[in-house]
Amino acid sequence: MKSLLEVVEQCDSFPYEIDASSKLDIHHAVPIYLGSQKIGNVLPDVMKALKEYNHSQNDHKPFEITETLIRFASWVDTVQKRTKVVETLMNTWRADKTFDALSGWRNELYPVYGDSEQADNVAFVMERAATPLFGISTFGVHLNAYTRDKDGNICMWVARRSKTKQTWPGLLDNCVAGGISYTYSVKDTIIKECNEEASIPLDIASKAKSVNVITYYTYTSNGLQPETQYIFDLELPQDFTPTPCDGEVDCFYLWRLDKVRETILNNEWKTNCGLVAIDFMMRHAFITPDEEPNYIDISYRLHRRLEFPTPRKGHHA
Amino acid sequence: MKSLLEVVEQCDSFPYEIDASSKLDIHHAVPIYLGSQKIGNVLPDVMKALKEYNHSQNDHKPFEITETLIRFASWVDTVQKRTKVVETLMNTWRADKTFDALSGWRNELYPVYGDSEQADNVAFVMERAATPLFGISTFGVHLNAYTRDKDGNICMWVARRSKTKQTWPGLLDNCVAGGISYTYSVKDTIIKECNEEASIPLDIASKAKSVNVITYYTYTSNGLQPETQYIFDLELPQDFTPTPCDGEVDCFYLWRLDKVRETILNNEWKTNCGLVAIDFMMRHAFITPDEEPNYIDISYRLHRRLEFPTPRKGHHA
Repeated sequence: MKSLLEVVEQCDSFPYEIDASSKLDIHHAVPIYLGSQKIGNVLPDVMKALKEYNHSQNDHKPFEITETLIRFASWVDTVQKRTKVVETLMNTWRADKTFDALSGWRNELYPVYGDSEQADNVAFVMERAATPLFGISTFGVHLNAYTRDKDGNICMWVARRSKTKQTWPGLLDNCVAGGISYTYSVKDTIIKECNEEASIPLDIASKAKSVNVITYYTYTSNGLQPETQYIFDLELPQDFTPTPCDGEVDCFYLWRLDKVRETILNNEWKTNCGLVAIDFMMRHAFITPDEEPNYIDISYRLHRRLEFPTPRKGHHA
Repeated sequence: MKSLLEVVEQCDSFPYEIDASSKLDIHHAVPIYLGSQKIGNVLPDVMKALKEYNHSQNDHKPFEITETLIRFASWVDTVQKRTKVVETLMNTWRADKTFDALSGWRNELYPVYGDSEQADNVAFVMERAATPLFGISTFGVHLNAYTRDKDGNICMWVARRSKTKQTWPGLLDNCVAGGISYTYSVKDTIIKECNEEASIPLDIASKAKSVNVITYYTYTSNGLQPETQYIFDLELPQDFTPTPCDGEVDCFYLWRLDKVRETILNNEWKTNCGLVAIDFMMRHAFITPDEEPNYIDISYRLHRRLEFPTPRKGHHA
């Protein structure tokens, strides 16, 4: 890539302006509503399959579908019922191998948030691998682990993803990252992932510092992914080395930030993890406004205002 | 205020959705274009005065004005000519006392950026105090100066603005802040302001760390202000005390972050400076996603995507 902004655009790839005259699928997503609140978007291929499925359910159709919107049928009126109809749908598509996205089934439940005015706004829960089919907003944590050399320069711990990992095999990654499953808090998740992905023990992981959130809207072969990543920084002791634990990481490198930037520009990173590292390099004065011509535009795209509900207090927990 | 999000909304007050049926002026701003690029917005009272002024210029009208947009007349086709016609206009309005905003005349020039595709995209320069009348995007620096007590807790240096200062007298402020004038770089500006506003010498000021940029679109009695603030953090030595220098600050306080938050919620801060402190408290794990219900929404509004051109490389410089 020529610039960091292009790397960011590669990840934050959902268009900012919809062009109805475009022939690209991405300009023809249909929104899913819960009441008056948009909670997701469905691409034309999913829309087609959803209509067929709904039609096949005869007089117990779970969805109301028009050309311009999708919503749950009026009888699907509780968290439990919404969860159940989506589970049944996704199990059907998984069994029929309708969508590649579902071959990555994880048996991991993600919350889907609804009306932001409510104290508890979990509208339903669904299998993580299915969320891109509905374009559901998901939430995760990423950790920048770093240390300082004897001149005080920051060196970042960078993970090489396992070559056998289902998604993005062999690419570079942040030291620790993971999705926030239903009933986990943000802090619980970062500590759990520190242990599982890098063998960072609780006494060190608990020093991970909440610094930020980045938000972007990505579009991959799996579907639509509006994502929110809570960012943590952790300065590791110089004598501590993260160690792969759960088989998701091949090895860890300790790199100076110029090497981090070079590998990002060289497309060697899982793209959203590159964004996390770019944000880190901005917050640590390695990328500065006098030197980076797209400093402000990068900031906009690392903090995209997503059009979906956010969790209310304690509702990741 | 009840919440930090409300504080942020009070500053980031330009509507996200324009409601043409509203009777409020803010929903009826008219854009100023330079070529195909929007560079500002004009409220109805300014629009009226601008039409009158333009009409009075007979066969040498500087602007083309329709009901839906304003642009420079075709003869106003260079940086120098644009600068001159805006200067003449603003001097006229200042002499006629047409707008209160111009009573705060500063004799300080701000760049107005145009086509982002050009290597040098300064379209013209104009008096700082006049920028809100045209809703021009402006750029500044803010410094969070802090120290740590013996338990490692962060204490922030907070400024009390002079009671005789023209704008926001007596309110709380960041330790150092200032606008970026034409030909200054970001780093030059922060170092200059450190000296002028808080008597922080070069050897300490040069350690100020570039961390971030915040962007918001505010609407005050002066007009429309889409603002970009480059943020710096500076950990001051425990034995160093900032000292007022140029008469703009009455005194400095060294406060724990709970006091900072309390005074922000109590509306004791100049609003945009409160946003800078909120961003600092997020980046330093004092405000965290598990505890702050509006964490993500606050992040969106601290990084609003403004619809105006940004400076190209080195063009603050």
